Amino acid sequence: MMNTIAVIPGDGVGPEVAREATETVTALGLDLTFDVLDHINADTYLETGVAMSEDDLQRVRRAGGVLFGAVGDPRVSSTGYARDILLRLRFEFDLYVNHRPAALLHDRVSPLRDPARRAIDLVVVRENTEGLYLGVGGVLRGGTKDEVAIDEEVNTYLGVSRILDYAFSVARRSVCMVDKSNAVRHGGQLWQRCWCEAVARRPDVETSHLYVDAAAMNLVADPTRFDVVVTNNSYGDILSDLTAQLAGGIGSAASVNLNPETGFALFEPVHGSAPDIAGKGIANPIGALESAALLLDRHGHSGEARALRDAVRRTVAAGRCTPDLGGTLTTAQAGAAIRAELLAT
Amino acid sequence: MMNTIAVIPGDGVGPEVAREATETVTALGLDLTFDVLDHINADTYLETGVAMSEDDLQRVRRAGGVLFGAVGDPRVSSTGYARDILLRLRFEFDLYVNHRPAALLHDRVSPLRDPARRAIDLVVVRENTEGLYLGVGGVLRGGTKDEVAIDEEVNTYLGVSRILDYAFSVARRSVCMVDKSNAVRHGGQLWQRCWCEAVARRPDVETSHLYVDAAAMNLVADPTRFDVVVTNNSYGDILSDLTAQLAGGIGSAASVNLNPETGFALFEPVHGSAPDIAGKGIANPIGALESAALLLDRHGHSGEARALRDAVRRTVAAGRCTPDLGGTLTTAQAGAAIRAELLAT
Ligand SMILES: CC(C)[C@H](C(=O)O)[C@@H](O)C(=O)O
Ligand SMILES: CC(C)[C@H](C(=O)O)[C@@H](O)C(=O)O
Repeated sequence: MMNTIAVIPGDGVGPEVAREATETVTALGLDLTFDVLDHINADTYLETGVAMSEDDLQRVRRAGGVLFGAVGDPRVSSTGYARDILLRLRFEFDLYVNHRPAALLHDRVSPLRDPARRAIDLVVVRENTEGLYLGVGGVLRGGTKDEVAIDEEVNTYLGVSRILDYAFSVARRSVCMVDKSNAVRHGGQLWQRCWCEAVARRPDVETSHLYVDAAAMNLVADPTRFDVVVTNNSYGDILSDLTAQLAGGIGSAASVNLNPETGFALFEPVHGSAPDIAGKGIANPIGALESAALLLDRHGHSGEARALRDAVRRTVAAGRCTPDLGGTLTTAQAGAAIRAELLAT
Repeated sequence: MMNTIAVIPGDGVGPEVAREATETVTALGLDLTFDVLDHINADTYLETGVAMSEDDLQRVRRAGGVLFGAVGDPRVSSTGYARDILLRLRFEFDLYVNHRPAALLHDRVSPLRDPARRAIDLVVVRENTEGLYLGVGGVLRGGTKDEVAIDEEVNTYLGVSRILDYAFSVARRSVCMVDKSNAVRHGGQLWQRCWCEAVARRPDVETSHLYVDAAAMNLVADPTRFDVVVTNNSYGDILSDLTAQLAGGIGSAASVNLNPETGFALFEPVHGSAPDIAGKGIANPIGALESAALLLDRHGHSGEARALRDAVRRTVAAGRCTPDLGGTLTTAQAGAAIRAELLAT
């Protein structure tokens, strides 16, 4: 696996949190170097109309993976812009897995009450290259009072089967498949068929199925019931933000966009660019740091990944964190506190 | 408004809870009569292949509204069956509004912890006739390893504008519009355009916008921030189950499917047929009773509707409720307890 990581800090709080992630990995003194592409952002898009050039893509391609900050800026219509960067990378590199763990950060930061319910430790496995995110569709009589807008949700046997198999490959106890086959029938029937086949391939794993509305409800009622939740692109987007919030707030959640066959991966905090707090120095760096921990895992440094996660938990438990987690530290101070804990171990 | 209400008890716990609703309305001695269509269910579907006949539809058409139980049965593939009854009624009667209130039932029954957070009082206004629920789409190479399944998400200017206007018409403080225009662009742009126009028509109402992933997160982090949340069919399905759970569990949540122009309405507990507890006599009747309260409201009996809601809250506060709410009563006992409270006032 190549040891150069492309860094795309992006917009808003993206650069603020990405800096903490790269500093922390650097502090570990490992064989990882960074190639920072800090011009891929809304400024560039506004100036040139292109957020990410072919040259940029080449640089990314030469790297062993991407550490991502966030994209999104109030000055640009997000409709095209997010597609141009984040979604483009997912499609170009066929990163069909979006792996989003949610493990309780600290009792204090979960909105749920019963302590038993708060021992959350699950993963949302989100299909990341199909579904509603393809951009296929069109508009009839656009801009008029008779407009009809169509977006196609596309699911393929290949796409559904491979994400289900990935879900089973990371299951510790169980896999719950989530769809809406009682209402959205074409894709629904395909997910049901692929699910039966995937279940048959893995008789050793406990399985269940929920419609997406019931899944949202059950995740809130008792998230500890779940181990791996696998679902499509759109439901995965929603349910993983939900579980992130339950486990410790969106600022603390990490993800990896992955192609298990090529090994190419993009590590990304689940929070977005958060323009409302950008530049204030109060963004929570933990989502980016937990994403860096996922990167360390994939680059063979799982001891360091574990140490980093422990350091994060200890600083949060001590209240040494940003305001969203009840602390008073800045982004840089919180990052430094975590590094100090990490290097002290 | 016509005073005959068609009742479709349906499957599973549907008949158990619908009975409590009709008994309670009957006990109030109002000018409402019921036409019970108890053959519209999975048994009929299995025997005849048709769940709801043209004759049934005629009877429903002659009524002033529908009181619905639930549809769904493990013996029938839900892919076609739910479409045949519930979705068909929504489409036939152009019930484009799905109005789903979530008001805290009791502190004890919310999974959230901070008491402030639990003073939930919001409405999810779900578009109910467009989006992914249209059934438009198709399958290429179905049943093979090269299958491609497509479901079209269709949004129209008419459909989006009217649901946004309805949302403003029921707003007390604010309207939050939820979409995913940063990723699903054709419909996303249409929602954004209609939203700008609707906002301009109602400068007196506070407004905000969230992407659906952020909406799920924010609803869990602090549901008290929200008054009216308006969104498409699919996101409305998910978010309304979520808010139902936050406010008192899915068994307690009510909804009305409505066409504000014709006045035709279908009242429906948000919970489904719950085959796992069907026949055990332990289903929570409150979702059906709160749906009956919405019916009373629309038939000019808002005093009775208020009294019914108060009676529900008093019995739950006293622990006289079904097991899902921490009580030990059966469905019939819980219904009787609520009626006793109601008639005592
Ligand atoms: C049964 C199903 C098709 C239905 C829906 O998704 O609309 C139900 O979940 C609801 O919310 O009324
Ligand atoms: C920015 C947006 C298009 C993106 C998505 O929905 O995939 C984000 O919410 C995420 O979850 O990574």
